[in-house]
Amino acid sequence: MKMTLDCIPCFIRQALDAARMVSDDPAVHAKILNEVLQWACGVDLQQPAPVIGQRIHRRLRQIVGVDDPYRPAKDHQNRMALAMLPDLRNRIESAADPLDMAMRVAIAGNVIDLGVPGSVTEESIRISIEKCLSEPLVGDPARFWAAARAAKKILYITDNAGEIVFDRLLIEKLGPSRVTAAVRGGPAINDATMADAITAGLSEITEVIDNGSDAPGTLLSECGPEFCRRFSAADLIISKGQGNFETLSDEPGNIFFLFKAKCKVISEHAQVELGSHVVVSRDLYATAP
Amino acid sequence: MKMTLDCIPCFIRQALDAARMVSDDPAVHAKILNEVLQWACGVDLQQPAPVIGQRIHRRLRQIVGVDDPYRPAKDHQNRMALAMLPDLRNRIESAADPLDMAMRVAIAGNVIDLGVPGSVTEESIRISIEKCLSEPLVGDPARFWAAARAAKKILYITDNAGEIVFDRLLIEKLGPSRVTAAVRGGPAINDATMADAITAGLSEITEVIDNGSDAPGTLLSECGPEFCRRFSAADLIISKGQGNFETLSDEPGNIFFLFKAKCKVISEHAQVELGSHVVVSRDLYATAP
Repeated sequence: MKMTLDCIPCFIRQALDAARMVSDDPAVHAKILNEVLQWACGVDLQQPAPVIGQRIHRRLRQIVGVDDPYRPAKDHQNRMALAMLPDLRNRIESAADPLDMAMRVAIAGNVIDLGVPGSVTEESIRISIEKCLSEPLVGDPARFWAAARAAKKILYITDNAGEIVFDRLLIEKLGPSRVTAAVRGGPAINDATMADAITAGLSEITEVIDNGSDAPGTLLSECGPEFCRRFSAADLIISKGQGNFETLSDEPGNIFFLFKAKCKVISEHAQVELGSHVVVSRDLYATAP
Repeated sequence: MKMTLDCIPCFIRQALDAARMVSDDPAVHAKILNEVLQWACGVDLQQPAPVIGQRIHRRLRQIVGVDDPYRPAKDHQNRMALAMLPDLRNRIESAADPLDMAMRVAIAGNVIDLGVPGSVTEESIRISIEKCLSEPLVGDPARFWAAARAAKKILYITDNAGEIVFDRLLIEKLGPSRVTAAVRGGPAINDATMADAITAGLSEITEVIDNGSDAPGTLLSECGPEFCRRFSAADLIISKGQGNFETLSDEPGNIFFLFKAKCKVISEHAQVELGSHVVVSRDLYATAP
């Protein structure tokens, strides 16, 4: 999906948040903000928003000279999520429908997102989980489970650190032997990379590959050959989070998007209410067949 | 008070909201957004935020060729507030402390503000009023009432349309004969102008002047001589809303600020929690004596 004018003020706020996360120097904050403002003047609205996110975060890393400035935040999110893991696993096992519960937990984990306003606290995650476990999901979970039962090769595209711990619970239920999990190929905000897959224990139970790209989404034109091969070969692609939805909603494949709708632009494109917990097929949105 | 880097993304969002309010043409939205982005690149952070607000809204009016693009929104807000007037007046009269209640109603009215995110519905105003009537105020209401009892000449600087209807109830309790109410001298977002003072019935009970300026705040260097004379002569100045706080917190005078803290930058400068209903003396904030 294309970005909208609404994405511009959001990028600028995000750049400022990011600048403050990586530096205490107000001159650095002003420098980054100014660069982003200048970029924004000439922005091509035909692109998905994560293309701009990628540019902002690359430049941020250059300016502050740190390879993975969100690493401390990601480590913190992983620790928070791992502390919740035993309890969540118990809830899945004791649920009337453990498959449904595992899917809900994975979607609830998508609240862990530093790209949207508001701080992510353990309390906000707990509240989001409880809402997601108790409220109706938006979309077509039954169709998702039918596709999952039929699939032989599943590509599971993860989104954020922390959230990837919750993804592990769904992958356990899907049957890890037919799943390949994919993480980002380089640092992109707080998106999960290979280090997070290892911390989450995901690499112990299933094959994990990286996509070769540092975009906060999945830009197929930038992804490595191994990822693209898996993408083409998969008979089910599970895409987590907003960034992957923004970049993959027009791509071919049997893709299901699992995410929490956290921004107005995305909730409008997905035709769901802001705050919804969503599980939908790309058929609903794709402009190309 | 000076603006901060946080004001920049907020201005850009505000400009986009404003563009959409005055035009249905996406090309106009993009043009206004682009101009604001270019301005923002060279912005002087030593200025109060309303200086930039003034520039944005002047340019917006030029581009769309409408003198007062917020007039329909202001008329709607006045109608909403007038519909609540009889009930609010009853609540003030039947309150244990009618003075305190009238002050709370006036502060609650400050929720009507199109300069901050989120739409203003009658429901959100009712909720804000109930919160403001029942929760402890932040600041020093007793000192405010002591100053009000002692004052001979009160200058009451209004903020938004709609809100000015609520101000009328406080001015009635202060004793209109010693009050001069001031409105903006020209259109500034949804700030009240003379037309709104007339609609609110304020001009029937007290003297109303305009300040000669179209800034969404009170920039004394731009205000007309009559306003400035009243400002100097007043022994109590009541300043409503965030824009007036931002522009007057460093100015001399026996000023009390009554507002709802709706943005992070202002709540931090005022040292109050976001969402607080505030009544404070300028002594707390002024850097100059």
